[in-house]
Amino acid sequence: MADKPKRPIPGQNHVSAQQVADRAGVSRSAVSRAFTPGASIGRETRELVMKAAEELGYQVNDLARGLLARQSRLVGIIATRPEVGFRGHLVAALSKKLIARGSLPVLLNTGDTPEEMQTTQNMLLGYRPEATIVLSGSPPKTILEGARRTGAPLVLIGRSEPGTDSVLPDNISAASLAAERLVSRGAKHIALVGARIATETIVERERAFLAATERLGFKARVARGADANYVGGEEAAQVLFGEATPPDGVFCVNDLLAMGIVDHARFAAGRQVPDDMTVIGFDGLPEAAHGAYRLTTFFQDPAKVAAKAIELLDRRQANPAADPVLERLHLGFVEGATG
Amino acid sequence: MADKPKRPIPGQNHVSAQQVADRAGVSRSAVSRAFTPGASIGRETRELVMKAAEELGYQVNDLARGLLARQSRLVGIIATRPEVGFRGHLVAALSKKLIARGSLPVLLNTGDTPEEMQTTQNMLLGYRPEATIVLSGSPPKTILEGARRTGAPLVLIGRSEPGTDSVLPDNISAASLAAERLVSRGAKHIALVGARIATETIVERERAFLAATERLGFKARVARGADANYVGGEEAAQVLFGEATPPDGVFCVNDLLAMGIVDHARFAAGRQVPDDMTVIGFDGLPEAAHGAYRLTTFFQDPAKVAAKAIELLDRRQANPAADPVLERLHLGFVEGATG
Repeated sequence: MADKPKRPIPGQNHVSAQQVADRAGVSRSAVSRAFTPGASIGRETRELVMKAAEELGYQVNDLARGLLARQSRLVGIIATRPEVGFRGHLVAALSKKLIARGSLPVLLNTGDTPEEMQTTQNMLLGYRPEATIVLSGSPPKTILEGARRTGAPLVLIGRSEPGTDSVLPDNISAASLAAERLVSRGAKHIALVGARIATETIVERERAFLAATERLGFKARVARGADANYVGGEEAAQVLFGEATPPDGVFCVNDLLAMGIVDHARFAAGRQVPDDMTVIGFDGLPEAAHGAYRLTTFFQDPAKVAAKAIELLDRRQANPAADPVLERLHLGFVEGATG
Repeated sequence: MADKPKRPIPGQNHVSAQQVADRAGVSRSAVSRAFTPGASIGRETRELVMKAAEELGYQVNDLARGLLARQSRLVGIIATRPEVGFRGHLVAALSKKLIARGSLPVLLNTGDTPEEMQTTQNMLLGYRPEATIVLSGSPPKTILEGARRTGAPLVLIGRSEPGTDSVLPDNISAASLAAERLVSRGAKHIALVGARIATETIVERERAFLAATERLGFKARVARGADANYVGGEEAAQVLFGEATPPDGVFCVNDLLAMGIVDHARFAAGRQVPDDMTVIGFDGLPEAAHGAYRLTTFFQDPAKVAAKAIELLDRRQANPAADPVLERLHLGFVEGATG
């Protein structure tokens, strides 16, 4: 059966790529390349194809497309820098659980440039996943809109949107607990280390921590790295330890930032952690538990986050009209050696 | 066009799921669940369905299946624990580059149990990827055979098989250089830290290092962790530092092991690194560059490894009969603070 002719699929539009090629005066293969992201094709040829396609009402017909629209088991996982920190663990957990439910996890790394973002977007639309899961990090709104346009269930992790199912860690309780902990450890000069790449979950942690320190009668200094990673922690540390009174209690909105702070404090600023300074992180990454850090932090279990996201997806598939929910997941406090 | 009837796809077998259901005396939905990994179905019902399916010569017809067999742009990335160490970076780089070439990267996390492995295998076969990339780590041979049975190009990373395209780091040169480096730093009691989970790339590093130390007139002690990770490094350290003469020069087959060794040496065995002991790792992970470690290591660039794997895939698609190649990628020596 594999050698049957490639006839049009029933139920699809019948403008063929060959008709587009004829009208544009190019080869069939040029039409294919024009619609393939990353394929080599001259700009002029591409424009001829696009013009003819528009005139004829041609839509890319990936063969599978119409079928996939109804029946695909592809689930898109959209992430920017899917290898960094907690995201790496979450992607692995999602992949494992999606496979267990019979879905095919497609890892859509949005890349770093607008072009890469656009390509990801187009692929998502072209292949019509049965569902899309968008992770925190910062894929822009256009990606969310694209995911919504697929018409398939959409679940957000670490971010929320009105009318959309989402899973968020209980940032507010954890950040408040961090503030109380720093104060109870005797910190007088409290600092918050955040990031200028302000994802929703980071902003929540920042705000909740500042509100809690204020309630406790402290005014926390704020230092932010460009990104929410180790280098960002070092950047924030340079600011904080460059000031007249260095901090003696620091809450970092994730573990990578906290590791940058701890290393800078110890190796550049000559401070002892925890003797001179209490440090609390967020995520509970395996590296944060290494002997070199033994970071005090809040653990979010990637397996539980993934399971909850898929539970929301199942629920939405079973009842497309259900009220959207925002699930908050509790975090485990990890008493380490830094505070 | 989305509301056309769901008729059989041309070119597919015409035994329908309904016919199987009728013969088995079960519902159409039970047939569907019987063929869906992870779906809820009683054992007896499942057996009735399977028997009827076999008698009628029914094959799962995922709708997309026959079409995908010729036209899918799905590329399977098969990995065990895709979040750990270098693999996390490689998966992200592969995803980015596959999207850029117009392919959809499907991340197949093989899981940890034989059942999960089997489910992954079945999905791979059912969805007929245009190609499969299998990473190091230890998906068993059955997965490789499954990938081969798809008939699509197969590329291995960090492992090799006769007749199959593969990309491997230049383990032999790097491990030999590590041995020379330890000797030139004055090490007299040399140790090799490996792992009992013996992937091809780990075994190569181990063998090349032992051969090089022998050539240099040394006999290296060998300690292995159960797994090639941080905990494995701690396990190996317990053995090495429990002996009468602790090592003064250690090569670890990856950075995670090396971080476990360094931390145990410093915090449990009371040794100074590098004053008492030179440590060299492998991979050049971002964490290995943290101030707490500044590990001397060999850097493999995930973007370059991914690009080379996709180059082999392109070549194989263009010429299915080309001779298989094994590409060796050069590693950059990173002079850190541990040796």
